Amino acid sequence: MKPPAPAPFLSACRREPAEYTPVWVMRQAGRYMPEYRAIRARLGFLELCKNPEAAAEVTLLPVERLGVDAAIIFADILLPVEPMGVGLEFAKGEGPLIHRPVRTAADLNRLADVDPGEATPFVFEAIRKVCAALKERVPLIGFAGAPFTLASYLIEGGPSREYLHTKRLMHDDPATWHALMERLVKVTVGYVNGQIAAGAQAVQLFDSWVGTLSPDDYRECVLPHSRATIDGLTPGVPVIHFGTGTAGLLELMREAGGDVIGLDWRVDLGAAWKRVGYDVAVQGNLDPGLLLARPAEIRRAVRAILQRAGGRPGHIFNLGHGVLPETPVDHVGAMVDMVHEISVGGGLRPPSDSSPPELRGPSPRSNDPS
Amino acid sequence: MKPPAPAPFLSACRREPAEYTPVWVMRQAGRYMPEYRAIRARLGFLELCKNPEAAAEVTLLPVERLGVDAAIIFADILLPVEPMGVGLEFAKGEGPLIHRPVRTAADLNRLADVDPGEATPFVFEAIRKVCAALKERVPLIGFAGAPFTLASYLIEGGPSREYLHTKRLMHDDPATWHALMERLVKVTVGYVNGQIAAGAQAVQLFDSWVGTLSPDDYRECVLPHSRATIDGLTPGVPVIHFGTGTAGLLELMREAGGDVIGLDWRVDLGAAWKRVGYDVAVQGNLDPGLLLARPAEIRRAVRAILQRAGGRPGHIFNLGHGVLPETPVDHVGAMVDMVHEISVGGGLRPPSDSSPPELRGPSPRSNDPS
Repeated sequence: MKPPAPAPFLSACRREPAEYTPVWVMRQAGRYMPEYRAIRARLGFLELCKNPEAAAEVTLLPVERLGVDAAIIFADILLPVEPMGVGLEFAKGEGPLIHRPVRTAADLNRLADVDPGEATPFVFEAIRKVCAALKERVPLIGFAGAPFTLASYLIEGGPSREYLHTKRLMHDDPATWHALMERLVKVTVGYVNGQIAAGAQAVQLFDSWVGTLSPDDYRECVLPHSRATIDGLTPGVPVIHFGTGTAGLLELMREAGGDVIGLDWRVDLGAAWKRVGYDVAVQGNLDPGLLLARPAEIRRAVRAILQRAGGRPGHIFNLGHGVLPETPVDHVGAMVDMVHEISVGGGLRPPSDSSPPELRGPSPRSNDPS
Repeated sequence: MKPPAPAPFLSACRREPAEYTPVWVMRQAGRYMPEYRAIRARLGFLELCKNPEAAAEVTLLPVERLGVDAAIIFADILLPVEPMGVGLEFAKGEGPLIHRPVRTAADLNRLADVDPGEATPFVFEAIRKVCAALKERVPLIGFAGAPFTLASYLIEGGPSREYLHTKRLMHDDPATWHALMERLVKVTVGYVNGQIAAGAQAVQLFDSWVGTLSPDDYRECVLPHSRATIDGLTPGVPVIHFGTGTAGLLELMREAGGDVIGLDWRVDLGAAWKRVGYDVAVQGNLDPGLLLARPAEIRRAVRAILQRAGGRPGHIFNLGHGVLPETPVDHVGAMVDMVHEISVGGGLRPPSDSSPPELRGPSPRSNDPS
């Protein structure tokens, strides 16, 4: 008896050939989905995160409904910092609020010391429930915020446009900045390794807001801490290193580490993969806004991305950032089917030149059945 | 008698050597400046834009106070589209609002036909006043929004985070999209050429929000229209082609045109200049957030950028985007002085390798007197 074929998602993480290009969607269990909204009508966001039964149910929704190639545990990047005593609240329509922001050495000293292996048992329990339900049908991804993105929430007190408090701390009090980052590295490593111990088969580090930084600031104030985080993770489990607005930072993010580099939609996947090097895998890079367009337009864009990936093993299809609440669920399902259908048997080879007409029109060498 | 040396700003636009690296600041006449706030206490934003006397006064403020190497006319990118009848309002603290957004072919057909040479006489009058007052002390820059950024305001009805209406129109109704863009090209060309006729010696095209697009969408939906705009401008006047979040679009923006390509702070200036090619000049690229830091940190960042430019003729120093309202005026003035002082005599050569320690530490080959 032949052993079962490895999951395409894990093959792609390891840059091994897969039957087709695997695809999942950031925030695939989220507000665009009526089943999710129904559950949220009963439970607040933090309540849901802390209820392993409900979190597992939400995690499994898109696997059933969309046929994605990986599940990702339903949680929030701020869960492991909540026990540090910063006063986390999810205010309706405003995103997370931190009532006691960390902007000085004194603020930092007030933070509680957290054992991340003990502070979020509900996340680990939800992971165990999901793994039991999935029975290895698709792999489960664990995740955490990268230290910069966590720090930006703690310092700003919530989402920000300019990140001025964060930048001011970095520039004017580097000792406190680095001390805060070291605290966050420690928490994150413990938290992610706890998820791996509970059954997560891959992990994604979300540095969602790091794109606000200049390459110099990234190199000096972020890279060492992202690297320390990735270096601290349980070996053998693929790490996806993700950010948005990072077209100017990709080489540095790659230097920080990760088996897979996340690409948002504002960069050409072919050019970006070349820049980070073919010895890492890449994930992305459809514009989330494109899922609101007609399916024919979605197909055109899916095909262009697959063509840029060129059938090279090591591409995980995804959006460039989370799926938008306004997205029709059917469009997401259609996109997943298109990725599978167009890429089956090794995907598309890149066009001989990169001229837009060929990318946009049907390619004679493509095996796209459409 | 020797003819007077050409202005360093214009020399840099033409990639000719200058005495020092010229510097100006986007929004250099703006809310961070107490003199500006005093004038705004008397006049609303649109009132100020439409008052040539006051607009000229505001335009001249930073030339007197900061010693910048260029003035930029005080105006707003939405002035030339206001007469199309979209219901423009500058609401307090909210930025511009468009009360009748353009989202369908019918909306487009309702737009009034505007002769841009007649619709904004106050801008041209302000330019004439500024030129008379400057007496060629420094050049005056005219400006306009690029068609995409103008379209995004008209379609969204104001500032946006995701640009979903804009993207939906681009993808689902390309005929209306391109027709709208063509209208905006026509208005913009007439408006900018009117500014040049009134005395502007260089012009900047602000595609401030184009960084929301994928390279494919830019190439197909924006590039031809930006190119048509630039191609329509009065020859011989340098054009600065500016955007933010464009680290993945730089080659395409360059393809669209411009003598100078604007770089925000999220890209390494040295790498970006190489990508767009040394046959164009570049402008940028200090993080506006850095001007809130201690002067020693500002100096370090100014020096790093000048070192990346490597003394190559054709670098105009600027922020990567507009100066923030929270910025201390003294820091802006100090930054202008630092640029002049560090770059005098041809600027810094790049380090022999691009390792960060050398960039960050004092360079033995530098002529920085600090």
